[in-house]
Amino acid sequence: MSMLVVGSIALDFVETPFGTAENSPGGSALYFSTAASYFAPVNVVGVVGQDFDFNIINFLKERQVDLDGIYVENGETFRWGGKYQENMNVRDTIYTDLNVFENFKPNIPAAYRDSRNVFLANIAPELQLQVLTQINSPDLVVLDTMNFWISSARDTLLNVISKVNILILNDEETLQLTGEKNLITAGKKILDWGPRYIIIKKGEHGATMISKDNYFSAPAFPLTTVKDPTGAGDTFAGGFVGHLAACNSITEPEIRKAIVSGNVLASFCVEDFSFMRLMRLSSEDLQQRLMEYKRITDY
Amino acid sequence: MSMLVVGSIALDFVETPFGTAENSPGGSALYFSTAASYFAPVNVVGVVGQDFDFNIINFLKERQVDLDGIYVENGETFRWGGKYQENMNVRDTIYTDLNVFENFKPNIPAAYRDSRNVFLANIAPELQLQVLTQINSPDLVVLDTMNFWISSARDTLLNVISKVNILILNDEETLQLTGEKNLITAGKKILDWGPRYIIIKKGEHGATMISKDNYFSAPAFPLTTVKDPTGAGDTFAGGFVGHLAACNSITEPEIRKAIVSGNVLASFCVEDFSFMRLMRLSSEDLQQRLMEYKRITDY
Repeated sequence: MSMLVVGSIALDFVETPFGTAENSPGGSALYFSTAASYFAPVNVVGVVGQDFDFNIINFLKERQVDLDGIYVENGETFRWGGKYQENMNVRDTIYTDLNVFENFKPNIPAAYRDSRNVFLANIAPELQLQVLTQINSPDLVVLDTMNFWISSARDTLLNVISKVNILILNDEETLQLTGEKNLITAGKKILDWGPRYIIIKKGEHGATMISKDNYFSAPAFPLTTVKDPTGAGDTFAGGFVGHLAACNSITEPEIRKAIVSGNVLASFCVEDFSFMRLMRLSSEDLQQRLMEYKRITDY
Repeated sequence: MSMLVVGSIALDFVETPFGTAENSPGGSALYFSTAASYFAPVNVVGVVGQDFDFNIINFLKERQVDLDGIYVENGETFRWGGKYQENMNVRDTIYTDLNVFENFKPNIPAAYRDSRNVFLANIAPELQLQVLTQINSPDLVVLDTMNFWISSARDTLLNVISKVNILILNDEETLQLTGEKNLITAGKKILDWGPRYIIIKKGEHGATMISKDNYFSAPAFPLTTVKDPTGAGDTFAGGFVGHLAACNSITEPEIRKAIVSGNVLASFCVEDFSFMRLMRLSSEDLQQRLMEYKRITDY
């Protein structure tokens, strides 16, 4: 079953202790769709300016990603610049230039409106609501957000949260959203607001699922090379939703496997800057690392 | 097969966001032996002053821990005071009064010298060497240490490391000891110095094993109540060495299960101050949580 993702498409400046990448493609919609394309067809809605890097567009076309929902507007593409600190767990935003993204209205093409699986990537909660009103009763809606919306658009965000099946957050966002100090207590609180599952991303420490009656924890794939964490969260989401779309089942056993897929996809993303590692990722690489993952968690 | 532990026995002052404990029993040898006693007989070598809290001694006797190696000296027991910061991942030492521990010489009683499994808890590397010279070719020697010895007694510590089978460290200590920035790279480096396995404790993020050809990662047991992390590392070590001593096998599959046992024992330790949770831990509680642990990691 195909997926729809609505999110940002960006040109990034990224500095990490391992180097610098300038004008490199980024944005939640592209990281998500690259990862998800290993599992099932993906339809993307987003906006770019005329300065965009069309190499990545060609790469996504080769991966059978449907890009008819990407609008090319007059002006510059959304640009984001960030610098990672020494341990790469903390990053500082240097600039955010919305450009053509400022007036983005998510018009969902008619052909996408029956999408069974929807990923609402990190954009304004108001726009996420607009997306939902255009989709005809999807089976699965997965939501991502960020600290900025949690503090600046809390009420609208809570409204979106009440309408989704699964919420994906990182550990800090989970505590910020709930005002709790313990992740499990925080996750349980969010379950009362609507979603059936909360997925908490913990970077180098993997990811955790909290449901009403259960809990699941999956470590990150061990890496000796981490060059650029940008996009890891959206790549995780792509592997996660991709797995669920491919098996067309939202049972807890499949959600657990989906988290493992997300962890493994994200492990490739961070091994190089921007899309450099994902662009040379074969299905065989992915299958092999999924098997290795089993070996490193089995006891 | 029985175990020998040589380590500290203390009276602790601990302050956490959840309260304060004064004059409460602590020290690596006691946390280790409490945890290990759920698996196989334990022999303890350490020193206390006449002010010690003998309730904990009686508790350990009830748990069949052999305390003939605990020397009662004139003077006060080793005292340590520490305060945990808001998120409890960081603690500041308020004071360290060595007292009778200052002149501690580990005399291993004749009855303990054939111990098959030895845990060298965190004491001066010089003393750890003295222990090893008194033991008749043990099957398993597991070593713990801390940042203080890594910086102040590095050469002696490296000498001890070259003589042990398994080294247990936390993540910060692993990086400090090796000068590396990546835990896996660091672990591999330590393997070249002698041990066959490095176990890296990551607090709320669980524990990781690194061997020449393999890697294993096990998340922490999820808790909504964490009152006092003091002793968690030694409790982990007790569950870990305890499992290996009980099954009398140092194969990698058993080491993986031993890490799970360590994680689960440590999860009880932190739920209350000092030994309060461990003192009311039944074998049934332990078995139940080991089964729950399987459920939260299975996919």
